[in-house]
Amino acid sequence: MSVANFRLRLLALRLEYDGTAYAGWQRQDGLPSVQGCLEEAIRKITGKASACIAAGRTDAGTHAEGQVVHFRTPSKLPVETWVPALNAHLPPDIAVAEAWEPAHKGFHARYSARGKTYVYTIWNSRGRSALLGNRSWQVPVPLDLTAMRRAARRLVGRHDFRAFAQVHGVKDRKSTVRTLKSLTVKAEGPKILITAVGDGFLTHMVRILAGTLVEVGKGKRTAASVGVALKSRCRPEAGITAPARGLCLMKVDYASAAGRKARPAK
Amino acid sequence: MSVANFRLRLLALRLEYDGTAYAGWQRQDGLPSVQGCLEEAIRKITGKASACIAAGRTDAGTHAEGQVVHFRTPSKLPVETWVPALNAHLPPDIAVAEAWEPAHKGFHARYSARGKTYVYTIWNSRGRSALLGNRSWQVPVPLDLTAMRRAARRLVGRHDFRAFAQVHGVKDRKSTVRTLKSLTVKAEGPKILITAVGDGFLTHMVRILAGTLVEVGKGKRTAASVGVALKSRCRPEAGITAPARGLCLMKVDYASAAGRKARPAK
Repeated sequence: MSVANFRLRLLALRLEYDGTAYAGWQRQDGLPSVQGCLEEAIRKITGKASACIAAGRTDAGTHAEGQVVHFRTPSKLPVETWVPALNAHLPPDIAVAEAWEPAHKGFHARYSARGKTYVYTIWNSRGRSALLGNRSWQVPVPLDLTAMRRAARRLVGRHDFRAFAQVHGVKDRKSTVRTLKSLTVKAEGPKILITAVGDGFLTHMVRILAGTLVEVGKGKRTAASVGVALKSRCRPEAGITAPARGLCLMKVDYASAAGRKARPAK
Repeated sequence: MSVANFRLRLLALRLEYDGTAYAGWQRQDGLPSVQGCLEEAIRKITGKASACIAAGRTDAGTHAEGQVVHFRTPSKLPVETWVPALNAHLPPDIAVAEAWEPAHKGFHARYSARGKTYVYTIWNSRGRSALLGNRSWQVPVPLDLTAMRRAARRLVGRHDFRAFAQVHGVKDRKSTVRTLKSLTVKAEGPKILITAVGDGFLTHMVRILAGTLVEVGKGKRTAASVGVALKSRCRPEAGITAPARGLCLMKVDYASAAGRKARPAK
């Protein structure tokens, strides 16, 4: 980042989106992306291009209730007008929920994040869901939640999660050690919610965790085998990658000093 | 109903739908309706026309997680194949969750119902919702939940709810007395859920209850004025009719003898 950038105003946004219609967060030529829509909305308001950086680069079809984004702009628009102004230029399936100016001028949506919470939704019924079709993975056979919870407990903690990362997403020199603070499995009628809280997640990690837990729930593998997969550091030892549509980025945590909550303007 | 009808097989279904794209439950010439889609799916499977009767005739844009429907058919298709067979012929925003044969041959989805549960969802934020846009009513100003709960308590019980019914929906000789078993107001982040449980509801009643409670929440009227409106039996004394898109029929209750749960086939 150039020094000039620091003279621009820093803004942060909390975004909600249904990712069904998008090729993911990241801008890609010729494909609709959440980043593309947001940058276009900013350009329409300010007349200037701004590059947006997100806390989590969600996959195609993945949703968010609490994505956090930062960008720099020369615009002097009051902070409280950004939410209605951006929403007026965004499609109905993307919305800005909050806008604020981080107190810390070095705030970075991704690098300042201390942790993230994802929820993976399973529709556990033979009948498909009319309301959650694009927001869940339908598993039409009964799942053993007790076994899934036993397996989940084996994954919590600070581990090398290389077995639970997309092979092409792993770069040799980068660490694949992450702390999974909690991994819970909750049933709400036909819905099963897998909630993962951690300091960071590897590419596809939550989807592979969900896919592996579902294999345990179906009785295809034991809870113990999940611990073995973790130790192996080898992707084929873990379970399948659950479909993107069940995943939702719920929340990104920051140290308050980093700027989150510093100057909220809902 | 003719005697011949009783020789046909009686089937009941539990339906889930997003009502956004429909002119309501009820079939209407030239307009898409949930009833029309369901009857067309049954005709495709059985080769015969069947008239479907629903527990609640939901308005245009209103949703359901637990609508119950009955119909009669000469088809001998095993009960467990109805869910996948119907879902294969229904659009993605309508789904059959359960099918069963009621034990009581006089089971009627509407007349056998002992009670219903509706949830009205308010999106209480200045930022619009990307995930609940079609399933909630956005109210962008703060609401006083304590006052709303105080007003709700004045409405619970057996009352003449004529003031809370659509004027054209009230027929002079029909009773407008209903028992509202509970009316609760719960906040979940920016979502406010108004849950109404009763033995039956008049046309638009839940939407008028929600609209009136929101006026109380905004400070436009007092909780006491809601009791006055109830006693007046006069529609203009109650509040506005909240938009249909916030309403969802969650559950219909039957005495088990009437057939619900008699022969479940999930």
